[in-house]
Amino acid sequence: MKALVFDGQLRLVTDRPEPAPPSGEARIRTILAGICNTDLEVVRGYAGFHGVLGHEFVGVVDWAEDRSWIGRRVVGEINAGCGGCEMCRTSQPEHCANRTALGIRGRDGVLAEFFALPVANLHPVPAEVPDREAVFVEPLAAACQLLERVHVGPTDRAVVVGDGKLGLLVAQVLALTGCNLTVVGRHEEKLAVLARRGIETQLSDEGLEGADLVVECTGHPAGFQAAQRLVRPRGTLALKSTYHGPVEADLSRLVVDEIRVVGSRCGPFGAALRLLAQDLVNVEPLIHAEMHLDEALAAFELAVRPGILKVLVRVSPCE
Amino acid sequence: MKALVFDGQLRLVTDRPEPAPPSGEARIRTILAGICNTDLEVVRGYAGFHGVLGHEFVGVVDWAEDRSWIGRRVVGEINAGCGGCEMCRTSQPEHCANRTALGIRGRDGVLAEFFALPVANLHPVPAEVPDREAVFVEPLAAACQLLERVHVGPTDRAVVVGDGKLGLLVAQVLALTGCNLTVVGRHEEKLAVLARRGIETQLSDEGLEGADLVVECTGHPAGFQAAQRLVRPRGTLALKSTYHGPVEADLSRLVVDEIRVVGSRCGPFGAALRLLAQDLVNVEPLIHAEMHLDEALAAFELAVRPGILKVLVRVSPCE
Repeated sequence: MKALVFDGQLRLVTDRPEPAPPSGEARIRTILAGICNTDLEVVRGYAGFHGVLGHEFVGVVDWAEDRSWIGRRVVGEINAGCGGCEMCRTSQPEHCANRTALGIRGRDGVLAEFFALPVANLHPVPAEVPDREAVFVEPLAAACQLLERVHVGPTDRAVVVGDGKLGLLVAQVLALTGCNLTVVGRHEEKLAVLARRGIETQLSDEGLEGADLVVECTGHPAGFQAAQRLVRPRGTLALKSTYHGPVEADLSRLVVDEIRVVGSRCGPFGAALRLLAQDLVNVEPLIHAEMHLDEALAAFELAVRPGILKVLVRVSPCE
Repeated sequence: MKALVFDGQLRLVTDRPEPAPPSGEARIRTILAGICNTDLEVVRGYAGFHGVLGHEFVGVVDWAEDRSWIGRRVVGEINAGCGGCEMCRTSQPEHCANRTALGIRGRDGVLAEFFALPVANLHPVPAEVPDREAVFVEPLAAACQLLERVHVGPTDRAVVVGDGKLGLLVAQVLALTGCNLTVVGRHEEKLAVLARRGIETQLSDEGLEGADLVVECTGHPAGFQAAQRLVRPRGTLALKSTYHGPVEADLSRLVVDEIRVVGSRCGPFGAALRLLAQDLVNVEPLIHAEMHLDEALAAFELAVRPGILKVLVRVSPCE
């Protein structure tokens, strides 16, 4: 089958064997995939992954032991735990030390005609959520996870730092709490996506000091330092983005000002699907381009350019 | 009056003018003072403070507008807010941007025959708490603040990293929750203080990975890194100590493992007094030496030596 493989070098191959799912797993035909910053990092050597890339997808179940799944349009959680450890037994397979992760760790990803994933990871997509929205469920769930980890009340003053894909999703989810939100970014055209939904945006963080909650979505150490400057004493600083290597942090300020730093990552797919089904989050303006799997190398070259939002890769025309 | 002054150099003077408290403040005669790591840092230039040193004390009210205070034995919270800002209006004067802090910021400290402090900061000391215990109320309150900021349940597995003064107080307070606690330190004789109370201690952190809560009390960046290694995914890393300058931190691990980092500082004096009055915390073994104000320079030289616990300075014999 056709697949986008990273083996130290990124290549589009046509002779990748089709996956033969083990018991408990389904075989899924990819409809549409999204390129995520993590994919770009994997290509730079992050996680030492070799195999088929990609973890954001909407697809159709092609084979499963339980035949009722076959033909269903699905999205899927990307982590598959060992099933036996304490994290797995307490329903936190995304923290299993021996987990595989779709296209990131020990498991081929979705930028191929077919891939395998445990049936337990799958979520059927309601008919009212089109493919180009469903493909955002994984990153939108990650945005929702912020509210799983931090209580945000309607009188809180919140700031999102960063107007990339993640920042735009986090901002839309935060706005649903009714909190007093401002998003700080560097790109007028990206901030306009939020401004059109009535969310306050600024090109500088002037006047935003003293926030109850600051969410760092830039992925740059400077973003962490900016976030630390904006949060009030006893406030919360939420980290959504990962960094290359260690960061110089003023940890003493965390103590003196009693700041709470909360990291969050993968999130609840069910909540993300409900938000999309209710049209409470608008992902369409986040799509920069849709290209075909045959153009996947060009799609990666495009996605890596600064300022580019989501690049989608269409694998099969079906919806 | 006699006072230990830092003005770029540490000196014991005899001609410091006695304080003339403004309205709302009391004049207090120091009985006993404690030397804290913060005092040692002030002498190294931290906070740029010049004036009388010291903030841990037990004393007797010598003068106050409300004469009912006069003659009472007291301890006192060290921060005095401006009274007008949002932090002050929400009863968090310790986070007022314009606060003074006893012997640290804009206000002469307690290593003198007399000092001034707002009456609102004072707490009468119950008769059953002797001077040598009452002088620990400020650091013990700081240890209690951990439980104000983090919920610790009786089934939690907790690790305290560091067996200095702060670590020994934090460990005793944490043990009161009934949690499954281990303290990691480098000094057998200090750990023995805890072991005698039935608290588990270790000279290495072997086997302590996966803790629900890790409290960093070493004050060294290596302690932060050790704490990060020990905390489980979705666990809490509590910071009690400040560091000199920025620290290299692996912030991405906080995101990937969804760690919560909680800073905490000054705490509830009432709770600390109750714990001492009930004999639930044992501070006497933390006293390394008691010296007289006339020997204050030697007391500082002693306190700065590695491995030394609390050095007390007696200013007046009264109890």
